[in-house]
Amino acid sequence: MTEVKKAEKSRGPKIVCIGGGTGHANLLRGLKRRTQNITAIVTVSDDGGGSGVLRDELHIPPPGDIRNCMQALSNAEPTIEDLMGYRFDAGSLSGQSFGNLFLAAMNGISNSFYEAVIKMGEVLSITGRVIPVSIDDIHLWATFEDGSMVVGESKIAAAKRARKSRISKVEVTPKDAVVIPECIEAIEDADIIVLGPGSLYTSIIPNLLIDGIVDAIARSDAVKIYVCNIMTEPGETDGYTASEHVKGIVDHIGQKLFDYCIVNSEKIDESILQKYIADGASVVEFDEDKISELGVAIVKCGLASINNSFIRHDSNILAQEIFKLFLSNAPTRLYNG
Amino acid sequence: MTEVKKAEKSRGPKIVCIGGGTGHANLLRGLKRRTQNITAIVTVSDDGGGSGVLRDELHIPPPGDIRNCMQALSNAEPTIEDLMGYRFDAGSLSGQSFGNLFLAAMNGISNSFYEAVIKMGEVLSITGRVIPVSIDDIHLWATFEDGSMVVGESKIAAAKRARKSRISKVEVTPKDAVVIPECIEAIEDADIIVLGPGSLYTSIIPNLLIDGIVDAIARSDAVKIYVCNIMTEPGETDGYTASEHVKGIVDHIGQKLFDYCIVNSEKIDESILQKYIADGASVVEFDEDKISELGVAIVKCGLASINNSFIRHDSNILAQEIFKLFLSNAPTRLYNG
Repeated sequence: MTEVKKAEKSRGPKIVCIGGGTGHANLLRGLKRRTQNITAIVTVSDDGGGSGVLRDELHIPPPGDIRNCMQALSNAEPTIEDLMGYRFDAGSLSGQSFGNLFLAAMNGISNSFYEAVIKMGEVLSITGRVIPVSIDDIHLWATFEDGSMVVGESKIAAAKRARKSRISKVEVTPKDAVVIPECIEAIEDADIIVLGPGSLYTSIIPNLLIDGIVDAIARSDAVKIYVCNIMTEPGETDGYTASEHVKGIVDHIGQKLFDYCIVNSEKIDESILQKYIADGASVVEFDEDKISELGVAIVKCGLASINNSFIRHDSNILAQEIFKLFLSNAPTRLYNG
Repeated sequence: MTEVKKAEKSRGPKIVCIGGGTGHANLLRGLKRRTQNITAIVTVSDDGGGSGVLRDELHIPPPGDIRNCMQALSNAEPTIEDLMGYRFDAGSLSGQSFGNLFLAAMNGISNSFYEAVIKMGEVLSITGRVIPVSIDDIHLWATFEDGSMVVGESKIAAAKRARKSRISKVEVTPKDAVVIPECIEAIEDADIIVLGPGSLYTSIIPNLLIDGIVDAIARSDAVKIYVCNIMTEPGETDGYTASEHVKGIVDHIGQKLFDYCIVNSEKIDESILQKYIADGASVVEFDEDKISELGVAIVKCGLASINNSFIRHDSNILAQEIFKLFLSNAPTRLYNG
């Protein structure tokens, strides 16, 4: 890249992406090519898998989602990138990600988990930065439509599979969990704020429940975009239309925060779809009128890509659409900001 | 360092250090400042501690001694060096070294353990190289003077503590363990070969029992130096003089390989000594005449340094002595080689 192009990119818009899970990391991969000013705010309520083991044994926030974002934003040499994604395949470490252990060890030689995350970002030469929404010991509580309540993200995941009911509400404890101040600063300073894609109740909304996040988004004059999932999730958003996704967020935070809702309008290959339908998922229909009624503009585009038989957002097209929305709202900002 | 000095150092003598354990890594720290042409050949019979767990669960050679040498030769940034030395202090990973996990994960993304060691060296920008003597599944067998036989380095360590007897002989299985060819090449190409310091029967001799090593050393016209331990080891070298250390090696390999034996001639602080004596160790006496009878020249110097109440070789002075011996033997080689 020429120095001029580099400088242009470093003057690029400041994007804050809020979420967790594969979709979040995937979005970052697309954005990384367009701006260096990326802040990924990451949920920390996961308590299952390798992350759960480290959280439980070492009393650190779950490293998995943070590590995923780091990998997406990494500019390290291929060996280091391969290492971060490596999972042990035998013994007591079986299934554990080396990247998680890396962050856990970094925590061991650092003054705080947040400092460890920053240092890991330096070692991986990441574009932008990754910030856990909080470093408190956050637990997720889900109330299902049948009235039952389940605590713990991994138990919620199991309950989603076992029940015929959907999640209707989530909460986090402790109620007074402290947000990392840099999250608030990043949101206040943002040109674009992107929420999602990701599991609505277990990856997206938990971030918004940490005190300070919603107020900061509300105050911000950034272009605010919600990226809706392509497929519904069993036990979480079964049968949800796009407007119901938006309404789920509004119901939890008591206000409409996002101006745009990006939805996929591309037909998905029937053979791939059948596998999802067999698992209880379905395509998220976009009910344009109802989204408009919520005061949110719908943005339709062909976003679906197939990766290893999984339906994912095409990270490049998604990033392109986000930039289009930004430019149509604040065309002078990119070049002067 | 100036470019001229760098070039001089890169033309520095080619040193091969054979051993294992703390003393080996310590020696490398001293040599690193004097030449870039270092090859550390490392024993792989350890089966205890964190190394033993990974060896057992992941079926890889024990990473601990290799990792120690890597740390000693590392030129990585301080964060990475701190990480490599970090040990987890809680949970199922308690006591495990992150550097060991690093090498284990590197093995997971590599075609062989040897390739993983090379790649780890690249990530740590090490001076020189570290080579496991073999990547076979090596087990150490010890015969004690009371006739009993114990297999496995960690079991031998326990037996040493439990018995009133000393080790008289060690062997390795499989008998046909294959040496890494680069070890042989390094020895053949060496200007200086250094054996030790380290545990005579459990870190030093095991390397010499891998087929090809002794022949290569015998063929080599390098200056060959054995660095004797400062203190005896309970159950291993109780009461041994320096000549008995040398004789232990000769008895195992059937020939005299080393021209020099470096011994410590410095008196050790009484308070430190008392702790060692309470543990069953004593100062290794140097019996000059008997060493000479074995055809080995003794080199006496003040080598003992105290580190954290442990008696160690002063790595700088030891390196200096090794270089002095080299220069007195082949004064033109350093500058023309």
